[in-house]
Amino acid sequence: MKLKYIGKTKDVYELEDGNYLLKFKDDVTGEDGVFDPGANAVGLSIEGMGQSGLKLTTFFFERFKEMKIPTHYIKSNIKEGTMTVLPATFFGNGVEVICRYKAVGSFIRRYGMYAEEGQELDAYVEVTLKDDDRNDPLITDEGLEMLKIMTKEEYKLLVDLTRKISGIIKEELSKKDLELYDIKLEFGRVGKDSHIALIDEISGGNMRVYKSGKYIEPLQLEKIFLNE
Amino acid sequence: MKLKYIGKTKDVYELEDGNYLLKFKDDVTGEDGVFDPGANAVGLSIEGMGQSGLKLTTFFFERFKEMKIPTHYIKSNIKEGTMTVLPATFFGNGVEVICRYKAVGSFIRRYGMYAEEGQELDAYVEVTLKDDDRNDPLITDEGLEMLKIMTKEEYKLLVDLTRKISGIIKEELSKKDLELYDIKLEFGRVGKDSHIALIDEISGGNMRVYKSGKYIEPLQLEKIFLNE
Repeated sequence: MKLKYIGKTKDVYELEDGNYLLKFKDDVTGEDGVFDPGANAVGLSIEGMGQSGLKLTTFFFERFKEMKIPTHYIKSNIKEGTMTVLPATFFGNGVEVICRYKAVGSFIRRYGMYAEEGQELDAYVEVTLKDDDRNDPLITDEGLEMLKIMTKEEYKLLVDLTRKISGIIKEELSKKDLELYDIKLEFGRVGKDSHIALIDEISGGNMRVYKSGKYIEPLQLEKIFLNE
Repeated sequence: MKLKYIGKTKDVYELEDGNYLLKFKDDVTGEDGVFDPGANAVGLSIEGMGQSGLKLTTFFFERFKEMKIPTHYIKSNIKEGTMTVLPATFFGNGVEVICRYKAVGSFIRRYGMYAEEGQELDAYVEVTLKDDDRNDPLITDEGLEMLKIMTKEEYKLLVDLTRKISGIIKEELSKKDLELYDIKLEFGRVGKDSHIALIDEISGGNMRVYKSGKYIEPLQLEKIFLNE
């Protein structure tokens, strides 16, 4: 098992059979000790965070498996805090796909002239480039095609898949009276046919969730959701 | 004649017949005394700048008139530094449409991970919101439609018109061995049928132009172009 990459919230190992092992860490992104799913730096470390994120991720990836939604997921080992996944290639150096149900965060920072904080958005999807140095810039379908990151057809597929996956997560959360405001997904190309698949994780660290109008921290969210 | 608006590089007056008069000023956008067409503040004032910009604008608007490309232009008075135009309504509080032939400026600031400074771009078009406080954020066709700024059909029309207009300007400049790197256009809705028309100005202040690989300042550009 070979360490391939040290990430902000996960380390990645290559297994002998060619698959990958993700080791979930207790670090979360944020600034000055305050959690922010959109931030690019590790802001704080919370004990049990990695395992908690893995539990939620596993719950959803198992669900997507049943529903035949393509992901990189193979299996998880909650005790060890690891998830075994298929190898995936990124779009360019990686893109993030955001689905928004309420106008908060970077949406308001960009479009605050036209939208009010907390305003309803109808599963609004946008794509940003993973680029810490340039603050994860927004990019259009034309831009992605021109820079040879993905075709317009792939963009459409990605948007549809994002709406479908986010809709399932939103519905599952709502069963526990949790409201999804926005979520950030990652996709890659997986398998011999390089089909588009959901990769990375689905945890509290990727989404903003509220309960009765009050923001729920990732760890708390996972506890409520998993009845722990 | 009533002063309606004091702009960064132009003042706008309402005429008695309902048309508008644009008074070109000697101020140009930039930072710390250095011209930057993408900047939001007035960086410096250059004598003769307003009249020079008006001359170039008039040249192109007359050309577009011949070619039946819709603009808000009626006539100019070079000596007075004024242009009479049809009233226009903005898309939202105003959008800017950028057409890029070379990767420079904000394009590189955003997509520098995937593009090299000066790399060729095939008339790449992007739309930003006029919003100084939020640094003129980029927006997608989906975003424009969702925020009720324009429909996707209007977006397509705008992109096509931008490519056509920018292509004409690029060609005219090339006749004087001037190379257009990028240009920023403004559009509005004009007339009883609210058709999309080019508004504002076409001057050195809206574009980046090079000659033999050397950047040409707006005033210099206008002198070369108009053989003065």
